[in-house]
Amino acid sequence: MTYKAPLKDMLFDIAHLANIGEIAKMPGFEEAGFDTAQAVLEECARFNEGVVAPLNVEGDRNPSSWKDGKVTTTPGFKEAFRQYAEGGWQGLQHPQDFGGQGLPKTIGAACGEMINSANLSFALCPLLTDGAIEALITAGSDELKAIYLEKLVSGQWTGTMNLTEPQAGSDLALVRTRAEPQPDGSYKVFGTKIFITYGEHDMAENIVHLVLARVTGAPEGVKGISLFVVPKFMVGKDGAIGARNDVHCVSIEHKLGIKASPTAVLQFGDHGGAVGYLVGQENRGLEYMFIMMNAARYAVGVQGIAIAERAYQKAVEYAKDRVQSRPVDGSMSASAPIIHHPDVKRMLMTMRASTEGCRALATVAASAYDAAHHHPDKEVRQQNQAFYEFMVPLVKGYSTEMSLEVTSLGVQVHGGMGFIEETGAAQYYRDAKILTIYEGTTAIQANDLVGRKTARDGGQTAKAIAAQVEKTEKELAKRDSVAAKAVHKRLVAARTAFVEVIDFVAGNTKASPNAVFAGSVPYLMLAGNLMAGWQLARSLLVAEDLLAKGEDGAFMQAKIATARFYADHVLAKAPGIRDAIVEGADSVTALALESF
Amino acid sequence: MTYKAPLKDMLFDIAHLANIGEIAKMPGFEEAGFDTAQAVLEECARFNEGVVAPLNVEGDRNPSSWKDGKVTTTPGFKEAFRQYAEGGWQGLQHPQDFGGQGLPKTIGAACGEMINSANLSFALCPLLTDGAIEALITAGSDELKAIYLEKLVSGQWTGTMNLTEPQAGSDLALVRTRAEPQPDGSYKVFGTKIFITYGEHDMAENIVHLVLARVTGAPEGVKGISLFVVPKFMVGKDGAIGARNDVHCVSIEHKLGIKASPTAVLQFGDHGGAVGYLVGQENRGLEYMFIMMNAARYAVGVQGIAIAERAYQKAVEYAKDRVQSRPVDGSMSASAPIIHHPDVKRMLMTMRASTEGCRALATVAASAYDAAHHHPDKEVRQQNQAFYEFMVPLVKGYSTEMSLEVTSLGVQVHGGMGFIEETGAAQYYRDAKILTIYEGTTAIQANDLVGRKTARDGGQTAKAIAAQVEKTEKELAKRDSVAAKAVHKRLVAARTAFVEVIDFVAGNTKASPNAVFAGSVPYLMLAGNLMAGWQLARSLLVAEDLLAKGEDGAFMQAKIATARFYADHVLAKAPGIRDAIVEGADSVTALALESF
Repeated sequence: MTYKAPLKDMLFDIAHLANIGEIAKMPGFEEAGFDTAQAVLEECARFNEGVVAPLNVEGDRNPSSWKDGKVTTTPGFKEAFRQYAEGGWQGLQHPQDFGGQGLPKTIGAACGEMINSANLSFALCPLLTDGAIEALITAGSDELKAIYLEKLVSGQWTGTMNLTEPQAGSDLALVRTRAEPQPDGSYKVFGTKIFITYGEHDMAENIVHLVLARVTGAPEGVKGISLFVVPKFMVGKDGAIGARNDVHCVSIEHKLGIKASPTAVLQFGDHGGAVGYLVGQENRGLEYMFIMMNAARYAVGVQGIAIAERAYQKAVEYAKDRVQSRPVDGSMSASAPIIHHPDVKRMLMTMRASTEGCRALATVAASAYDAAHHHPDKEVRQQNQAFYEFMVPLVKGYSTEMSLEVTSLGVQVHGGMGFIEETGAAQYYRDAKILTIYEGTTAIQANDLVGRKTARDGGQTAKAIAAQVEKTEKELAKRDSVAAKAVHKRLVAARTAFVEVIDFVAGNTKASPNAVFAGSVPYLMLAGNLMAGWQLARSLLVAEDLLAKGEDGAFMQAKIATARFYADHVLAKAPGIRDAIVEGADSVTALALESF
Repeated sequence: MTYKAPLKDMLFDIAHLANIGEIAKMPGFEEAGFDTAQAVLEECARFNEGVVAPLNVEGDRNPSSWKDGKVTTTPGFKEAFRQYAEGGWQGLQHPQDFGGQGLPKTIGAACGEMINSANLSFALCPLLTDGAIEALITAGSDELKAIYLEKLVSGQWTGTMNLTEPQAGSDLALVRTRAEPQPDGSYKVFGTKIFITYGEHDMAENIVHLVLARVTGAPEGVKGISLFVVPKFMVGKDGAIGARNDVHCVSIEHKLGIKASPTAVLQFGDHGGAVGYLVGQENRGLEYMFIMMNAARYAVGVQGIAIAERAYQKAVEYAKDRVQSRPVDGSMSASAPIIHHPDVKRMLMTMRASTEGCRALATVAASAYDAAHHHPDKEVRQQNQAFYEFMVPLVKGYSTEMSLEVTSLGVQVHGGMGFIEETGAAQYYRDAKILTIYEGTTAIQANDLVGRKTARDGGQTAKAIAAQVEKTEKELAKRDSVAAKAVHKRLVAARTAFVEVIDFVAGNTKASPNAVFAGSVPYLMLAGNLMAGWQLARSLLVAEDLLAKGEDGAFMQAKIATARFYADHVLAKAPGIRDAIVEGADSVTALALESF
């Protein structure tokens, strides 16, 4: 077994932090209680452990390849994707109206983690398809929905997001791809898109490209961008596959990681124009794209957790097996497995605690999403929506930055063997590096956190969340355990730092934007760190209670130990970050440009 | 130009932090004043920028290859190495008695940085040769010296260090390679060594392997290990190359980075025994190996600085060129080069400040080495030796850990392009990952710092250094500038944290080794951070003085801005680390082994 899904931890979070019991009381989720979660997760684990995970190394060694416009994926991918589709996994969270299972995100997120742990490159195809589905559900006409949604939800076809162009990366105002209206109501699309994940492949019979382009005569900048569906193959009214559309993959990239995932350069309209269909209204493309992107950003955050979990499992296995040096405390007279050495433990605990913290954060964010969409009370829905939106840049930004450290430690635990590609630890290190970049770099997430999520409402949402953290602090303060006391101390310090930073951000974004944005990523890291630490603090409270009831002692003790480690070693970094943000802005911008 | 040596910064450190003027007063270094340093560095820059740097990308794409026991290096390497040898660069720091130039380490370290910035893979061959030379000078018999040293110092032959075996990595007690004494005084060596850098190649006519092995009947463990010279080709008394020795390269590794550097598996004695010659006395091999290793550890620290500098230069170039998004302060109405965005500046400043801080630290450590070997006063020599030995694990451990963050930020600045191999930023990220592992992992450096460098003398050396930091604080306190005040504040906080950690380490290593070693790497990171920050604080004092005198305003202002950035954003992390060490040990070791 190269990957074992951490079902116990996932179900602990789902049951006790995300309160799946409450979610199952909401209209539309009546079937989605703990038992369903458990059954789905167990089945999902079987599939990903058995079918998807074994293809991960093969994908790295034998990546997708391009020839004459066609992309051949890694041997085994096509068959595994067929099984994925047949298992109904693509439709897990999508509406039953279009053939999905309509399960809560709280369950879907755990399944998303599993497939990404199993194989990040493979999982990207469903991830992008999810985004296309979301966009069509939200903004597509009934006709587009009728033609495309069922096929996408069933996994018969796959979807892509076409944003980036050579000159337009983070800055979509620079998009140049153009769309010319045709008499029949369709458009002809012309342009070049780059970095298109699964923009071409052989795993499904059609690919549904969602493409940002400017209609002739549209305003400049982001207000003149529209969203189009451009299928690889034309589709008849009966849903039958027709002629090849004028969109072609001219090359795929040679990348640091996620090598099995084909990253395409797509050329639209070189042979007369690619037929496209407008999604929603003209010039509102960016708005729709943000729907896809917000779903995708959350999902990329989960990818960070997923790759961290996989790296952790591999490092633990090696550390238990590799014998080297005597323990420093003299407890053994011969060389011991390296997991006995304190620094190896420290590395493994850092990996474990960071992963569990981000998982808890993502799970709680998912449950807020579910409540935001399904809770009967409008006010509760709004509160949950605000909470979820605050968490998205943290799930994306913090979990992925965390995954860089964790996968690096994963290599480090392996020593020299970690640097040898055949060992496999290096693949996670390489694969993870894209996560802080795509679907918006960490800086883009931080801009979102500062601008839309903090400054816009004067820090109100952020402070409301800080108040919730304080409630947990009060619970911790009532406990007698050493662990609770330690976590309490760190949580108070981190939350205090967070509140000071909120004031700084809310108070200065308009007047001194450079000063605030100089600390935007540190603010994101502080906030993410605190939120993950807060959820682990909640875990500790639950675990202490369940331990007292005699439930699963070893697991609960591990949960407590992990929460405390996080507090002492990760959360303890928060106050230093506060200083860098509030007092350190001047030194970010002091150097003259010529001096760099 | 793909690499431009940072001569100004290097010479600033050499002149004002390492006080080359004082070194030039020491016996043997009379010629090694500032003018010599400048002339040597300029010549070195020309060679590395022009000859070595252009081969870096080629080495990654077309690495060393193995066929039938022979290793062919990247096209161009052989010729470049010939030029390196002819330029006298291998002998820069070695004694004139053996054909070297006998220059101070203070100058040599800067030259070492340049060749490593230019091409980490290429630079490893001279780096290992330096180690072999040091070992032979210290412990070799006159006969061995006569046969090998001049050829190594001239670069005609190269050297290797053969420590690691499959079961013996960090734990050399487990070495199994054996040496059988022969009637003629030589030995026959049998065994397998792995991870041998430049263990086989085509760049020199002979390779001088320095090999750890056990003489038949030697005690078990580290006290039974001896050091041998095993040449690839036998050498006649006249120095002429003779028959092939029985040491063969059976394969080279497929690695994450430094791909051009061949990492060999060497098989000794498969055809009757490899002829080896004892270096020094039997069973003292580890002691001699530490001589090589200490030189190599310092040099690997410099590699960290070197790759960070190269990554920084590449990121700056991209950030000045890539146009994307309007500045947040509304100062431009169109999209601007990304270097105008505060978070890009923050990343570049982090890279710059970390690199300059570690360079300053390494340069000052080198000057202590020079004084330890050349100062006429014995007491001064001893003080400098203690200072240098304390700094070696910091230069190695902290600079290389720093390089992981810097090369990661280097990719991040490039956004999606950073993940594309052709861009080149990813190579630095991959190459750097070995630096925290080889010549002793960061944990091994931290063990050295805790055990030999701190606990052994009850923290005396560490506290003497802290007292020196305090003197700089007092100087800063006298200044009126905002920058000096900011740096003062952070330096006091970090030094205070450091002193508390020294007390914790010195007071508990014997009684609670697990608790101390659980925080060993954080202690190393705190100490390294402080020492680099201290040197930048000294830079600030010097730069303010020179600025007042009207010297090179732009450079001095940049030096001040960089020192302040370091203090606010890097040094500010130190107090949080203190907490993790002093209060966080229990949570490192709390988790039951079965729960991992």
